[in-house]
Amino acid sequence: MNKQILGLGLGVALGMACFDGAFAQARPEVLVRQRQAAMELQGKYMYSIVPMAQGKLPYDAAIVSRNVGFLEVLSKMPWDGFTPATQDAKNTRAMPAIYSDGAKFKAAQDNYVAELGKLAAAVKSGNENNIKTAINDTNNKGCNGCHNDFRARTGG
Amino acid sequence: MNKQILGLGLGVALGMACFDGAFAQARPEVLVRQRQAAMELQGKYMYSIVPMAQGKLPYDAAIVSRNVGFLEVLSKMPWDGFTPATQDAKNTRAMPAIYSDGAKFKAAQDNYVAELGKLAAAVKSGNENNIKTAINDTNNKGCNGCHNDFRARTGG
Repeated sequence: MNKQILGLGLGVALGMACFDGAFAQARPEVLVRQRQAAMELQGKYMYSIVPMAQGKLPYDAAIVSRNVGFLEVLSKMPWDGFTPATQDAKNTRAMPAIYSDGAKFKAAQDNYVAELGKLAAAVKSGNENNIKTAINDTNNKGCNGCHNDFRARTGG
Repeated sequence: MNKQILGLGLGVALGMACFDGAFAQARPEVLVRQRQAAMELQGKYMYSIVPMAQGKLPYDAAIVSRNVGFLEVLSKMPWDGFTPATQDAKNTRAMPAIYSDGAKFKAAQDNYVAELGKLAAAVKSGNENNIKTAINDTNNKGCNGCHNDFRARTGG
């Protein structure tokens, strides 16, 4: 079912992207902009709680809970933007391996989502130490696990 | 409680924005980028269902339900990016009235969120005609109600 919805969503994303009610083909640069937006917001909500896990900012359970909830939703949004049509797009740090090794890229996405799932479970349990560990794991294994292989260090 | 969380979130957003675990002050251009990302994604998920409400794309209940769920979360994300520090930021279509008439801007935000709430309720009810009406209302009264007064037609 999820796969079906994703497929349909991809179809819609590929078939159109309209702004202010007007139609336009979903050009590669639109897909790039949309996936970058999803990454930008994951950065906003992830990297304001990482310092709490690292002891560099006071731990705030309400902020952590809110952000993790946001991240669970945002983590569903970038992937349909990495279509073959975007392979030659400019202004992106997406690396060629995304397109040449789709299985590894998908595994890295799944790994991030799995780490985030563990973080959400930790938040639900309410144990601060476990939550901090899960924040660091999500950052180090999840975010960076994908960025290391699939995002160029500069550019975009 | 929500107000408190928002206030704290704003404090975090103002105090820092870090990437890849490194710290940096939340510069106005970062706040602009983050709020634009939230708008970009609201566009992605809103303007792929507006044509369904207009009869220009086949109605797909699963896509509508997914997108409205996404929009409910995304609609919480842009507002803490419109701080006074961003008043002179470049590369934004945000109009001066955002800063000079904060009450009206807040009312426009609240109106959008209220329309979106009605749309979410319609989705829950499952009545396709009501859902289509609510999609159009959210677009026309919600999105555009704010854009007309607070977003320049060109630029940014």
